Amino acid sequence: MPQFLDTNDPGFADEFADLLTRKRESDADVDAAVQEIIAEVVARGDAALIEMTARWDRLELTPETLAFSKAEIDAACAEVPAAERAALELAAERIRAYHSRQMPEDRRWTDLSGAELGWRWSAVSAAGLYVPGGLASYPSSVLMNAIPARVAGVERLVICAPTPGGRVNPLVLLAARLAGVDTVYRVGGAQAVAALAFGTETIEPVDKITGPGNAFVAAAKRRVFGKVGIDMIAGPSEVLILADAANDPDWLALDLLAQAEHDASAQSILITPDAGFGRAVAAAVERRLETLERRAIAGASWRDHGAIVTVADWDEAVALANRIAPEHLEICAAEAEALAERVRHAGAIFIGALTPEAIGDYVGGPNHVLPTARSARFSSGLSVLDFLKRTTLARMTPAALRAIGPAAETLARSEGLEAHGLSVSARLARLNAEMAG
Amino acid sequence: MPQFLDTNDPGFADEFADLLTRKRESDADVDAAVQEIIAEVVARGDAALIEMTARWDRLELTPETLAFSKAEIDAACAEVPAAERAALELAAERIRAYHSRQMPEDRRWTDLSGAELGWRWSAVSAAGLYVPGGLASYPSSVLMNAIPARVAGVERLVICAPTPGGRVNPLVLLAARLAGVDTVYRVGGAQAVAALAFGTETIEPVDKITGPGNAFVAAAKRRVFGKVGIDMIAGPSEVLILADAANDPDWLALDLLAQAEHDASAQSILITPDAGFGRAVAAAVERRLETLERRAIAGASWRDHGAIVTVADWDEAVALANRIAPEHLEICAAEAEALAERVRHAGAIFIGALTPEAIGDYVGGPNHVLPTARSARFSSGLSVLDFLKRTTLARMTPAALRAIGPAAETLARSEGLEAHGLSVSARLARLNAEMAG
Repeated sequence: MPQFLDTNDPGFADEFADLLTRKRESDADVDAAVQEIIAEVVARGDAALIEMTARWDRLELTPETLAFSKAEIDAACAEVPAAERAALELAAERIRAYHSRQMPEDRRWTDLSGAELGWRWSAVSAAGLYVPGGLASYPSSVLMNAIPARVAGVERLVICAPTPGGRVNPLVLLAARLAGVDTVYRVGGAQAVAALAFGTETIEPVDKITGPGNAFVAAAKRRVFGKVGIDMIAGPSEVLILADAANDPDWLALDLLAQAEHDASAQSILITPDAGFGRAVAAAVERRLETLERRAIAGASWRDHGAIVTVADWDEAVALANRIAPEHLEICAAEAEALAERVRHAGAIFIGALTPEAIGDYVGGPNHVLPTARSARFSSGLSVLDFLKRTTLARMTPAALRAIGPAAETLARSEGLEAHGLSVSARLARLNAEMAG
Repeated sequence: MPQFLDTNDPGFADEFADLLTRKRESDADVDAAVQEIIAEVVARGDAALIEMTARWDRLELTPETLAFSKAEIDAACAEVPAAERAALELAAERIRAYHSRQMPEDRRWTDLSGAELGWRWSAVSAAGLYVPGGLASYPSSVLMNAIPARVAGVERLVICAPTPGGRVNPLVLLAARLAGVDTVYRVGGAQAVAALAFGTETIEPVDKITGPGNAFVAAAKRRVFGKVGIDMIAGPSEVLILADAANDPDWLALDLLAQAEHDASAQSILITPDAGFGRAVAAAVERRLETLERRAIAGASWRDHGAIVTVADWDEAVALANRIAPEHLEICAAEAEALAERVRHAGAIFIGALTPEAIGDYVGGPNHVLPTARSARFSSGLSVLDFLKRTTLARMTPAALRAIGPAAETLARSEGLEAHGLSVSARLARLNAEMAG
């Protein structure tokens, strides 16, 4: 059974605060181990990668077999059934169409002082995507990471993915090919992140690393942040559903379970103004759980982290949603559009009962790499902007320098930075002499 | 004397690589100390802040005096001479005008499947700016951090600034007022970052922390990253100048020194196709150094980290500039515009000999908080985007769900996520029954 809360209960504020701040993941302290792994890769390059891959992935590699060959990728792609290939192609096309609209524009203008100002966007030269192995090896995530990079114009795009025992999901390789990835290395863990950040004899360093991973990968990304760019430190996934009683409890039960089946530390929350509807959804969840393949995982998530919150009205629901700042927000209510406008902190909003989150996970178009653990308060899902950077531009004319240069001199002097001031006044002196002469 | 390099020299590649990768800052290992400071603030709140401020800033505070009062700020603002006030006002106005153009647009469209897609931008609710004390307490940096936050629409904007011995720069308080900062706390160091991230009895937590600081502040920002958003980990500042022989060596000498006077670990590099002009600039630097107030700092920076590189042509210059990925790039050459277009990795470009970097530090309009230490390869200067986040929107119609839902089902099945697939198929079953009925 999940937790049942009601904003009317005297203990609600504390219970809700607890729900919000409760840690769903253990903080494995892997930082020291990760520091050592990074140092090893920096010191010994390929040799370190090969040793670690043999030890942890039980796979013997050579510098020549660190990357999948074209023939291996061809073979894997040929294995993929036509229906899966068509579905991946549709997903890739829709993700590309959505993200193409995100490309920002360069600007250049002349202001009243005569100064020419502006900015210009450009892509990072090289990006590396981390793709987890095993259960969490999702071809959809390959598309979601790689396509924005390609749309942005990244020139060299590589993947690192562990292949424990040599096993690989052929759909991952097909997704990499559809997304235009250049090279896929069969290396995982903190050592892969180190190789992407610092380079080895075989793996060229990249400028930006994105993609989810376990505690080792997360710690390694945090460590190399600054040397390269990283996307975010992903936590367990979560969904919040706002729903009125006009919905089919079974649909919402499936949506809650779709989140719960990811991971025992995932979190599914339903907020509804109708307590009876909330109980009906809870009952539907129990019925569905009985037959679900992943019932052990989904059941644990729902029991330990799930919640159904009864509110007095939508105002309360919106206020709670903004405090939760959910990664995924489904709004299944007559006033769904109006409610969507009032929720300010959410990674992605799915509007209306016909938009289950699973659509967004695969084929909707928006990115499914989204801020978790309340970080939608200050961050956004992955986008082409993550693979771009902006250079600001400024060009002074004589008129502009005469208009604004003296203020720069004044401020430089007030900050005690004499050469700053002189660099302006030397130019102003010449301009003034030219005017006088 | 700075280092003289020539791309023609046989040792050039190694010398340049060394210039690029040489560490200019010692890595003070303050992480353990910072971890303890954060834990103290989390555990004991205001009491910890007050004790640490007494110990390190020799200043006795109470919860009531943690923040500057309105009267104190009024008094400080009244102290500022009219010329400084006018210069700050001009700077604020120009920075606001530039950053206002950065506000991105919301989008919403219907695609061919009938799916309604889009995104919406919103501001973080609260932001905290760190303003260093002592020599590096720059009112211009207050404007550069606070104005983009206000333009973005941040509701609550606070500053933490150490005031060693109780001393404060009145221009900092005036800049805070001009930029619309709500509260200024006289707390600094890692403890200020902890208070902003986790909150105390007096200081409410914020969602985003920006601003430069010493090694303790940088380590604390890295530690709280994820709990709150941070801007970047700033390193020592740097300038690269590309210049032809038609320039006045004295102007460029002052530009190199303006960078060098910031900090002994700052770096100033000149690249020119004319070796004789390079020597003339070096001589001008020596002449200017003799009389500069901050000659000890500027001289150390120039001697230890400065460089003059002679290239065969502009192609070489552009290639080197892209490898350096400078924070600031000045281009003083007849073909300045064309060269600016070819440099892809730079935080800010100052085009033409009449645009010294000092203009950009104060009154140009673009932000002066820029990526250092080659991070312009993957990151941008501070902007309104740092105080905004994007929520993606999706709404399926019956037609859209029928068009793309089956592909989602297929991919969910291939990833072994049954409830994901069922959440789509339950809806499709109803739609199909309705069509049939």
